[in-house]
Amino acid sequence: MTGNSFGTIFKVTTFGESHGKCVGCVVDGCPSNIKISEQYIQKELDKRKPGQSSITTQRQEEDRVQIMSGVFEGKTTGTPIMLLILNKDQNSKDYSNIKDIFRPSHGDYTYLEKYGIRDYRGGGRSSARETAARVAAGAIAQKILKEKLNIEFLSYVQQVGNIKTDIDFNSVTQEQIEQNIVRCPNSETAKQIIKLIQETKEQGDSIGGIIQGVIKNVPTGLGEPVFDKLSAQLAKAMMSINATKGFEYGSGFNCVDFKGSEHNDEFYIKNEKVKTKTNNSGGIQAGISNGEIINFRVAFKPTPTISKPQQTVNIHKQETTIQANGRHDPCVLPRAVSIVNAMAALVIMDMYLLNSTLVIARST
Amino acid sequence: MTGNSFGTIFKVTTFGESHGKCVGCVVDGCPSNIKISEQYIQKELDKRKPGQSSITTQRQEEDRVQIMSGVFEGKTTGTPIMLLILNKDQNSKDYSNIKDIFRPSHGDYTYLEKYGIRDYRGGGRSSARETAARVAAGAIAQKILKEKLNIEFLSYVQQVGNIKTDIDFNSVTQEQIEQNIVRCPNSETAKQIIKLIQETKEQGDSIGGIIQGVIKNVPTGLGEPVFDKLSAQLAKAMMSINATKGFEYGSGFNCVDFKGSEHNDEFYIKNEKVKTKTNNSGGIQAGISNGEIINFRVAFKPTPTISKPQQTVNIHKQETTIQANGRHDPCVLPRAVSIVNAMAALVIMDMYLLNSTLVIARST
Amino acid sequence: MTGNSFGTIFKVTTFGESHGKCVGCVVDGCPSNIKISEQYIQKELDKRKPGQSSITTQRQEEDRVQIMSGVFEGKTTGTPIMLLILNKDQNSKDYSNIKDIFRPSHGDYTYLEKYGIRDYRGGGRSSARETAARVAAGAIAQKILKEKLNIEFLSYVQQVGNIKTDIDFNSVTQEQIEQNIVRCPNSETAKQIIKLIQETKEQGDSIGGIIQGVIKNVPTGLGEPVFDKLSAQLAKAMMSINATKGFEYGSGFNCVDFKGSEHNDEFYIKNEKVKTKTNNSGGIQAGISNGEIINFRVAFKPTPTISKPQQTVNIHKQETTIQANGRHDPCVLPRAVSIVNAMAALVIMDMYLLNSTLVIARST
Amino acid sequence: MTGNSFGTIFKVTTFGESHGKCVGCVVDGCPSNIKISEQYIQKELDKRKPGQSSITTQRQEEDRVQIMSGVFEGKTTGTPIMLLILNKDQNSKDYSNIKDIFRPSHGDYTYLEKYGIRDYRGGGRSSARETAARVAAGAIAQKILKEKLNIEFLSYVQQVGNIKTDIDFNSVTQEQIEQNIVRCPNSETAKQIIKLIQETKEQGDSIGGIIQGVIKNVPTGLGEPVFDKLSAQLAKAMMSINATKGFEYGSGFNCVDFKGSEHNDEFYIKNEKVKTKTNNSGGIQAGISNGEIINFRVAFKPTPTISKPQQTVNIHKQETTIQANGRHDPCVLPRAVSIVNAMAALVIMDMYLLNSTLVIARST
Repeated sequence: MTGNSFGTIFKVTTFGESHGKCVGCVVDGCPSNIKISEQYIQKELDKRKPGQSSITTQRQEEDRVQIMSGVFEGKTTGTPIMLLILNKDQNSKDYSNIKDIFRPSHGDYTYLEKYGIRDYRGGGRSSARETAARVAAGAIAQKILKEKLNIEFLSYVQQVGNIKTDIDFNSVTQEQIEQNIVRCPNSETAKQIIKLIQETKEQGDSIGGIIQGVIKNVPTGLGEPVFDKLSAQLAKAMMSINATKGFEYGSGFNCVDFKGSEHNDEFYIKNEKVKTKTNNSGGIQAGISNGEIINFRVAFKPTPTISKPQQTVNIHKQETTIQANGRHDPCVLPRAVSIVNAMAALVIMDMYLLNSTLVIARST
Repeated sequence: MTGNSFGTIFKVTTFGESHGKCVGCVVDGCPSNIKISEQYIQKELDKRKPGQSSITTQRQEEDRVQIMSGVFEGKTTGTPIMLLILNKDQNSKDYSNIKDIFRPSHGDYTYLEKYGIRDYRGGGRSSARETAARVAAGAIAQKILKEKLNIEFLSYVQQVGNIKTDIDFNSVTQEQIEQNIVRCPNSETAKQIIKLIQETKEQGDSIGGIIQGVIKNVPTGLGEPVFDKLSAQLAKAMMSINATKGFEYGSGFNCVDFKGSEHNDEFYIKNEKVKTKTNNSGGIQAGISNGEIINFRVAFKPTPTISKPQQTVNIHKQETTIQANGRHDPCVLPRAVSIVNAMAALVIMDMYLLNSTLVIARST
Repeated sequence: MTGNSFGTIFKVTTFGESHGKCVGCVVDGCPSNIKISEQYIQKELDKRKPGQSSITTQRQEEDRVQIMSGVFEGKTTGTPIMLLILNKDQNSKDYSNIKDIFRPSHGDYTYLEKYGIRDYRGGGRSSARETAARVAAGAIAQKILKEKLNIEFLSYVQQVGNIKTDIDFNSVTQEQIEQNIVRCPNSETAKQIIKLIQETKEQGDSIGGIIQGVIKNVPTGLGEPVFDKLSAQLAKAMMSINATKGFEYGSGFNCVDFKGSEHNDEFYIKNEKVKTKTNNSGGIQAGISNGEIINFRVAFKPTPTISKPQQTVNIHKQETTIQANGRHDPCVLPRAVSIVNAMAALVIMDMYLLNSTLVIARST
Repeated sequence: MTGNSFGTIFKVTTFGESHGKCVGCVVDGCPSNIKISEQYIQKELDKRKPGQSSITTQRQEEDRVQIMSGVFEGKTTGTPIMLLILNKDQNSKDYSNIKDIFRPSHGDYTYLEKYGIRDYRGGGRSSARETAARVAAGAIAQKILKEKLNIEFLSYVQQVGNIKTDIDFNSVTQEQIEQNIVRCPNSETAKQIIKLIQETKEQGDSIGGIIQGVIKNVPTGLGEPVFDKLSAQLAKAMMSINATKGFEYGSGFNCVDFKGSEHNDEFYIKNEKVKTKTNNSGGIQAGISNGEIINFRVAFKPTPTISKPQQTVNIHKQETTIQANGRHDPCVLPRAVSIVNAMAALVIMDMYLLNSTLVIARST
């Protein structure tokens, strides 16, 4: 409960620093007898790893995951699964240019204020490198949800800067998303985004954007009102990802453009099932999934690490300037798609298990 | 952990249904020796209560709070504080028109799917009436935070439909907010909003909007990365409120309009303190408060209960129409301001107490 | 998590003080569609209530329970169930003799040290009156477990002072337990115990004893190693009851009298089921139920409130004497049987629901 | 909350199996700026490690701990501390004799029943090897508590079989405890115990005993009634240790031998402090520490692994016999002393941090 764990039943605790020995996680509460391999988890991790394309950071981290516990003869045993990603060359770098300086819009200042000490190497714990552990844990959740319930996670890059695709999220496929390095299912928009990111990179600058989250085949009934609503847990999950600034689901902030009579999702019957004609509810009504496609959007700010010089202060409270010399991502969104899917999967998995406590008691 | 509790240390558990015997809450983990009276809590509750003005529902609920435990001779004892609000006339109504029907964009359908049973009287547990308990609990948190740290909660209505004030949130006062029935600190905009709400009401329709959240004087260091970031907990808190569709803080979704060099909040020194020139971070960096004013926005959808007829289905999976005959709010925002403040206060209070576990251990 | 809640899924939060307005609880996470009535809960409460026989306190508290939320048309709705027991005449007493004095082996001193304030009326929150709320919550758990799984809770008074029954707990029935006012299934021993309690009472003194806990028909698989073992949760549950001093299960402290070859419970097959020949494990192996009868023992100290004069100190750190003038229980055990059963039921219920998260995921 | 985490603020999550790749833990919520080294933790671990003397198992495990995260330049950073102990030769053994057989009074049967799969190598997760991670985590807690509050953990072996020391726990020192291989502070008793263990070992058998827990210098005010009482948390902590059968504190089960007038701890004033003349309360009144020495006893059963042949059944539900050929501990108590101290330290540390949330709010 002190911040580094997520979930009530399917509970993930992450650990590790950017340039320390490792990052990793412990997954407690995973159902037993599920086939899990390092190869499977690695495939998801590779979507997040640095250096995967010309528009991501050119840092080379292998991000090789090892299953250290909780799996026996290829299957989960119901005991905690520890996933470990060792860092390479963690002591080889020179940090003298950032050791005493607060990088603007990074966690350097707030971590030092809170803890009275700061691992300045690559941002330490506040680095987005921590999310590798989330992606690894999320891969396990995604696999179980796919196999048991056919749930699919189909998030993609909808917008970078002012370039946006208006593709219908209801019909987007995994193949479309993975067909280009920016993970935008509209290839024409993808080209424009790639061009924008490259220009921004050449300027020594960075740029933000919006990821469209999509979850298909979620059964009705997931979500635990009144505080642990599905919408509330998704919001928390997304806003816990580095660099996020906003979350909305269904009609989102655009709900102001509607009257109630236009915004309400009217019910009808299709194949003896209750369906809604529209989906302004984003698949969630009163905090509980209603069987429609769950959709949400997450805003990511421009990467704070840029090559341009910036005004700042140091730990001695003196004003100074800083200029990053590193190989940073000019835009985090292409790599963040896998993090959004992972966090969404952790939420759905936990809610599925929590809901099962109602179901089993009712049906016995 | 099954949904009706919020917070780790300052933990609030709410109970009760809209038209049952009562709504209320238990506040566990409240510091001792704090002066609390029913009169003080009542004042906050009155800002949320129905029937307070011409643009809110004309239902008359007194919402009279009673402190049932945890307070002795006017002071908290450190033991659980139970706050009880008895409902009036809970059995006098006729529910035959909604008993078997799913109201569009309400929780009727999802509650029945999840639980296999539904208290249909006024929405039961899914009614926004539950938030009265949150406002009561939040009043205690607000009082402690004001007295100990001078923290102020200054949320207000920023936008209804397409009418929006561009007033600077940094300078808004409590008096400006409470000067009109819509709780918009710009009295000119307020007039336009009142007109819009009244027109909408006459049409038998409803309308949504945006509440600007503002928290002043939060010390640095609050927030528990990596999952219980201050931003993540605020997002969860807000998205757990009925009718919310989106949350953003600082630059929010507008972060896409900036390059990193424009978006980063450069540091400078003022009166020997570290400050930022801009506040795109919304007072939160890497999930931890940085001492600047915390600001966020929450989108509320149009009230789903409207007088206009709507297509829907009933519990027998037959298509039908529904037309509310009740006295509903055409716009929830004026009353929701107190709920936003309450939930923000619960988050800050819990984070303050959690952070104290670091501080005391370090300083002893 | 700040002390007044028990359970992860089936979560009970109690509130209230001995001589305040009320005691009560909120039960969150209760499965839906379960028939529950005030009459049923009352029956369990009556086993704990004061004044029920000549050997319990002659205080007259009706302990009338009201279901305030979470039940609709006689069935649970899956939402929080608030159970309320109003206190009678809470302000009529004179507390001048205990207001400033620490009663020996009561919570007066430690509560004041911890909280800096103390509700001295009848012990306030530290009074065993709080356990009425546990019995009410436990009654719901017992009903569900009986109906779904035929689980029975058959605790009884095994020993008071040095008078002890050696009846075989495996064959004890509810009828035998309830056949006398001391709740000892051996009527001969019961008579001796009643005599001992009456003599002790006449001396203005008090006496302790041991309750034998028995739970029948618990399925295999309950318990969440490595920390939330069934044995660990039972121990915590029992040691959270007022006046308890020790917990043991199966062979307990007598395990020192055995060699491993004698102590191990050898397996055999009976009707195609795996059974153990002996039950030194007390129905729990490695923290998980093994299908045998769960049995444990809980030691209760002599009631600290006695009529004999005692040396003590007051809040001004002056030495003084105290002499209770009240109507106290000379022995808490007869009334504590229902509390032991209630807490055991809360543990089993929570473990059953937690285990269901494994089962449902495996079987889907 | 699914079993492998302990604590609310100072939260320890353990992972790993006996003969898998590793055991270890994540410590979240540790205060920052505390000096911690692998050498310091190793010293505590060495007290638990196998092969340390002639009366413990002759298995040779180095149990070398590595700090993998959360410590920077020798100090804690407030972020999760991952402690890793790699297993040696984990795949070299032959498990054919236990692969399909349920060892009596082990977790083999219940783990398979619960999870539907079982890591049979050396008991897998149910092995006491998991407690190495607890000792490592507990070492950090002990160091902080010693440095901040001078709290000392002085548990020792009080009894093995029917050989018992009656030494006064109030005066026992760390030196006395560590002066012999059995960790009994009375050297004469220690000699007899060593002889008893050696004889038992030669018989291919095992034997249990009692550890006396002692905690000195705990300030008043620790413990969170009504469920998370200090006594309840200690009971849970101890009963979560492998092979434990009972817990008692203060007078414990012997409380039946007293009348209330004899059992109550009368208060007096010493050096202007409130003290008790006796300590039947074991340093805890109403679930809160009262400033006296905390003392408790924990019963450990005879090790279930013995060389003598035993009747049992296999996974095919056939009756069979088993005979351990391994190098097991004939008596776990000498090594368990460090586990008792570790778990006690985790409880006290968590309670200290929880209590600080009250203190800071009151004093600001």
